[in-house]
Amino acid sequence: MKTAKVAIVGFGTIGSGVARLLVEQRERISRRAGRPVELACVVDPDINRCRNFTLPKGVLTRDLSRVTQDPEIEVAVELVGGLEPARTIVLELLRSGKNVVTANKALLAEHGRELFDCARQAGRSIALEAAVGGGIPVIAAIGQSLSANQIESIRAILNGTSNFILTQMEEHDRDYAASVAEAQRLGYAEANPAMDVNGSDAAQKLAILAHLAFGAQVNWKKIPRIGIDTVDVADLRYAKELGYSIKLLAVARLVPEGLELHVSPTLVRHGSPLAEVRGAYNAIRIIGDAVGQVFLHGLGAGQMPTASAVVADVIDTILGRTAITFEALGLWSGDREAPVTAGDPDMAPGRFYLRFNVDDTPGVLAELAGVLGRHKISIASVIQHESDEEVDGVVSLVIMTHSALEGAMRQALEEIDRLACVHEMTVRMRVSDLQESHR
Amino acid sequence: MKTAKVAIVGFGTIGSGVARLLVEQRERISRRAGRPVELACVVDPDINRCRNFTLPKGVLTRDLSRVTQDPEIEVAVELVGGLEPARTIVLELLRSGKNVVTANKALLAEHGRELFDCARQAGRSIALEAAVGGGIPVIAAIGQSLSANQIESIRAILNGTSNFILTQMEEHDRDYAASVAEAQRLGYAEANPAMDVNGSDAAQKLAILAHLAFGAQVNWKKIPRIGIDTVDVADLRYAKELGYSIKLLAVARLVPEGLELHVSPTLVRHGSPLAEVRGAYNAIRIIGDAVGQVFLHGLGAGQMPTASAVVADVIDTILGRTAITFEALGLWSGDREAPVTAGDPDMAPGRFYLRFNVDDTPGVLAELAGVLGRHKISIASVIQHESDEEVDGVVSLVIMTHSALEGAMRQALEEIDRLACVHEMTVRMRVSDLQESHR
Repeated sequence: MKTAKVAIVGFGTIGSGVARLLVEQRERISRRAGRPVELACVVDPDINRCRNFTLPKGVLTRDLSRVTQDPEIEVAVELVGGLEPARTIVLELLRSGKNVVTANKALLAEHGRELFDCARQAGRSIALEAAVGGGIPVIAAIGQSLSANQIESIRAILNGTSNFILTQMEEHDRDYAASVAEAQRLGYAEANPAMDVNGSDAAQKLAILAHLAFGAQVNWKKIPRIGIDTVDVADLRYAKELGYSIKLLAVARLVPEGLELHVSPTLVRHGSPLAEVRGAYNAIRIIGDAVGQVFLHGLGAGQMPTASAVVADVIDTILGRTAITFEALGLWSGDREAPVTAGDPDMAPGRFYLRFNVDDTPGVLAELAGVLGRHKISIASVIQHESDEEVDGVVSLVIMTHSALEGAMRQALEEIDRLACVHEMTVRMRVSDLQESHR
Repeated sequence: MKTAKVAIVGFGTIGSGVARLLVEQRERISRRAGRPVELACVVDPDINRCRNFTLPKGVLTRDLSRVTQDPEIEVAVELVGGLEPARTIVLELLRSGKNVVTANKALLAEHGRELFDCARQAGRSIALEAAVGGGIPVIAAIGQSLSANQIESIRAILNGTSNFILTQMEEHDRDYAASVAEAQRLGYAEANPAMDVNGSDAAQKLAILAHLAFGAQVNWKKIPRIGIDTVDVADLRYAKELGYSIKLLAVARLVPEGLELHVSPTLVRHGSPLAEVRGAYNAIRIIGDAVGQVFLHGLGAGQMPTASAVVADVIDTILGRTAITFEALGLWSGDREAPVTAGDPDMAPGRFYLRFNVDDTPGVLAELAGVLGRHKISIASVIQHESDEEVDGVVSLVIMTHSALEGAMRQALEEIDRLACVHEMTVRMRVSDLQESHR
């Protein structure tokens, strides 16, 4: 039987994990792919740096043409990351006749249309299981296993770095900066973790899932997003007192006006599956009209979990399943089924957690409540602790609202933040009160 | 484009759910299958009984030959359930050239080899996503998405009826009989729930998963199994006191001696994902050597969740993905990869929860502890409450052991149950202390 030759472009952490699996588990992978699989070539500009896996001699090269010019290489794995040169490389790979497997959510979120059009023209496929949720098979679940369903909502923890930091803050009552430092020390956060902690990474992944599930072609930059860099350890304490954890939730939900999309730190009730997701784990809760609720949980990043998804895509591509899936899904094409457009974010309803820093003087609560009332926002509960939490005559006041519209809430807070009795910007978070128990 | 005609054999609860999806969501399903899909025929011996879904005129028939004789029907869904006539029907369907989709775990666990050999000879496929875990895509996860991994263990709640009953007992402190009655009243348990509550249903599903993940061809009847009919509400109370829930766990785990397999009520530590699975839900925790832990959770039974999995298989079969998967997996064939054989159950290690009913007299604990010690079973903790729980001079004594071998435990209990101070058979359950947190 003809050997299926595979190339990897980008020999970083994930790349060396994929290489390790393809080399060390070659027999297993060949058996499951139905014919011999061989790692023919690994391309990286740096061929001298030491990695934690040593390639067979002659496999590592700086020269991309060793892939594009070799007609025997059937599958090329793009693990360069980022936009350029990754975009140019993927286009070259496709045009030279390679089927592509990628873990690059930024590239897909930004240039999906161009890359998928190119693949269609070249008669080749792109597989993307590793781009969202690392080792969790969420792309296969939505794109294949739940194909009988209209997906109604996706609520997910898609950024392991943020979840690790929030877990540190919650469990060790550690402040944000110290938790980020701990995440960096343990390798869960990069030196510059901006894309992780400001919600951009989660928004890119959400844009891909929303496209897959709802046909929506969303510009990820237009997804309203708030990162965890706005979360104070005090909020985690108040949330706990109210019976909630704080998670960076990415939400895509069909509503009458279209698709509600946002990424934001969200209070999730203790005991619900998403609230119990700790450390660097990811989780995705999908609701479909036939299946009801499906909850998937696992490692959303890291070398071997991501490599597991990449190699599954390599096997699928060699078996021919990817070609079928690629055509059936028609991602980023005009043919894509009835695309749902994003609704007006201001019309998204929700409950909110608010933390005000206000003067400890009579009448302040009445003033705040008055503004909220004028915007038709009603109060569900209030916490104000005794003066041991008071600093320089300023106290924290926490309010949980009943359901209100995003737009009304924004306007009310703009007004409140201009009041003389209010110090610092008011902290605002969504509350997820959806029936999320396992019952 | 040629219409893909589909038949359903068996028009019960699941059958009418599948028919409903195929008829009401015909446009959606056709789009996802890449060409028009039509429910051509539904076969059932009873064509007069009222169902909650009314078929288009002329579709319902008593006559199986309307399927086997119609060359235009490409896919036949077997939802007859049980062994016969389901076995004969599936063989006829395959021989007449139909690809089969089935939700029948009993049939697969019992006659998988014969059916799959028949399908291979006929050049047709069998799809089985709905046979295990209802709407949870566990077959696709193990058979496809985790194909880069050696699966190391599967720990699962596979019987929703049992889980519902245990949840009732735990949350409402209701006894076993009352909880079964409640499950029957709500439609979660059949009039005769024996196969569900005695662990047989879970053992059949475990046999299928173990075959898929480990290549093991296990006779499900040889899987050691204990049902929830042995669990007393007192055990749930003691477990809670110790920080555990009791779940009917089905376990398949690679050990040096082969494959450890069993189904039994098991103490699972509070806060671990499996402990939080409530009501009629199922969940599967898979550990793979690359991906680490993946946890899947959803409705494991019921009309529409099961129909969701069946229709996904129908779509996959029409798209041609099932044919590839069917060949790649080579289930129930001699070619199946290095089959693992079941190890000696007596050599399976584990921690145990023991509840003795003993005379409330001096020296009893010493006597029990002596027997355990002679079998090298060491005690981790003991609970004995004050005499308010004493009835007729008999008290409950609960012991949690450190790790011990199944065989040694069995022998020790045989000896203990012969002691004069011991009343009733000792209750024994496994304790799952595997690191199961989300961290």
